[in-house]
Amino acid sequence: MKLHLFQAKSKLGDVDHNLSRLVSYIKANCGSGDIVITPELYLPGYMSRDLHFNIAEPINGKTIKEIEKATAETGCTVVTGIGERDNATDALYNTAVAIGPTGLIAKYRKRHLPSYGVFDEARYFGAGEDEPPVFEVGGAKMGLAICYDAFYPEISRSLTLRGAKVHIYISAAPDMSRKYFETFTMARAMENVVYVVYVNTVGQYDGLGFFGGSHVVDPLGEVLVRAKYYEEDVKTIEIDPSLVTRYRAIRPILKDYRRSDLNYLEGEH
Amino acid sequence: MKLHLFQAKSKLGDVDHNLSRLVSYIKANCGSGDIVITPELYLPGYMSRDLHFNIAEPINGKTIKEIEKATAETGCTVVTGIGERDNATDALYNTAVAIGPTGLIAKYRKRHLPSYGVFDEARYFGAGEDEPPVFEVGGAKMGLAICYDAFYPEISRSLTLRGAKVHIYISAAPDMSRKYFETFTMARAMENVVYVVYVNTVGQYDGLGFFGGSHVVDPLGEVLVRAKYYEEDVKTIEIDPSLVTRYRAIRPILKDYRRSDLNYLEGEH
Repeated sequence: MKLHLFQAKSKLGDVDHNLSRLVSYIKANCGSGDIVITPELYLPGYMSRDLHFNIAEPINGKTIKEIEKATAETGCTVVTGIGERDNATDALYNTAVAIGPTGLIAKYRKRHLPSYGVFDEARYFGAGEDEPPVFEVGGAKMGLAICYDAFYPEISRSLTLRGAKVHIYISAAPDMSRKYFETFTMARAMENVVYVVYVNTVGQYDGLGFFGGSHVVDPLGEVLVRAKYYEEDVKTIEIDPSLVTRYRAIRPILKDYRRSDLNYLEGEH
Repeated sequence: MKLHLFQAKSKLGDVDHNLSRLVSYIKANCGSGDIVITPELYLPGYMSRDLHFNIAEPINGKTIKEIEKATAETGCTVVTGIGERDNATDALYNTAVAIGPTGLIAKYRKRHLPSYGVFDEARYFGAGEDEPPVFEVGGAKMGLAICYDAFYPEISRSLTLRGAKVHIYISAAPDMSRKYFETFTMARAMENVVYVVYVNTVGQYDGLGFFGGSHVVDPLGEVLVRAKYYEEDVKTIEIDPSLVTRYRAIRPILKDYRRSDLNYLEGEH
């Protein structure tokens, strides 16, 4: 399975521009069975602030339809981030989508919205109640979550227990959070014995720097590939999710996982 | 609060020898309110293998009583590891104890027993069903767990939700696990915004090397102190658990913690 870590800048508020760059990349580079992964909120641009209220689209909107055309044509799967407008309530969500050759195969509204320091996501977006999704590409189960969700080990654990051997985190993480993400992607990979794929925003937006550094961690915590820091970059890499079984013979951490640990989390504290 | 990371070798199977070194250290160096922390299974020696069946002691045995004398005398608290024999069943456990000036204040039977690669703990020990304990020293809530438990984020989360602002992991980790522990102690500290104290065995036992490298991570993931690798070492450090509140203003991760994440862990998968 070939992954494309599409670490591109977004033009803030210009969904059509960002979409067009993504679709061009897919058509030129993405073969059948490949997966292209962009940063969080790549299509509107993460730092679009109040513009989100104007440019968010429903999940069946024209942007998703445009991507569906490209994936149907190429056999590629795309994982990207949109500002989603809920049709019924008009509420906005920070949403990740996976779109395969047959159309939309997974969507996920970010559950953990940072609203501290430089972050203000709860100002724009509602918090998702969806279960982080598990979907299949080429017979391999993949999980999908967004950025700050990686701070919460419960998310990756849930994806693991539902069979996901590749966990994809799309992200928009600024410089001061680099150590956090690089620690957590390692930890999530090693504690679940899974591949973790992390694709981050890059560039300066309103003076706030996003570090890029998109990467893939293997199930024993080796970083297999890392995109450039602070510059646009695309990295491609072949991984074989069926190898997870072999890694779990070396580190059989899930054999020793105890569901009863949850009793202490569920209790009244 | 002054912590003493007592990274001493154990003489295998010689509880009296190991106890005597610990008690001497306490009497010479440990003031009232201080905490001395040893590696996992420090008293019998981690690699004592089938000797554990002969030398394990009940929780009210002479070794614990001897430590209680030293802590009563000095006002110090000791966190250490014993091979515990259950009085009723004769089953053995890999047990951590916290002993303060008033006697035993916490005990914990290791829940996750590694039995793969060089590890064979399930051959000797039963798996604990106890909740990982939270206890107080000088008005600060501390949590206690053992080694491989650090691979399971549920353990630290449970300690956090019960108020523990300092998580102590006693450990016996060999060289090939160093990256795992150094990643997980960072991750547990940062995802819970707590101090993590890690004290590891050091030295060669039956040709197997234990890396030492005991350390303390602060609630933002800074390593405050680290003991030598591959050599005996004692490090002392002052920490102030009340600062956790201030760190949680900088990284209010617990504000954004969602109990409903557990629904996905509890479901039938």
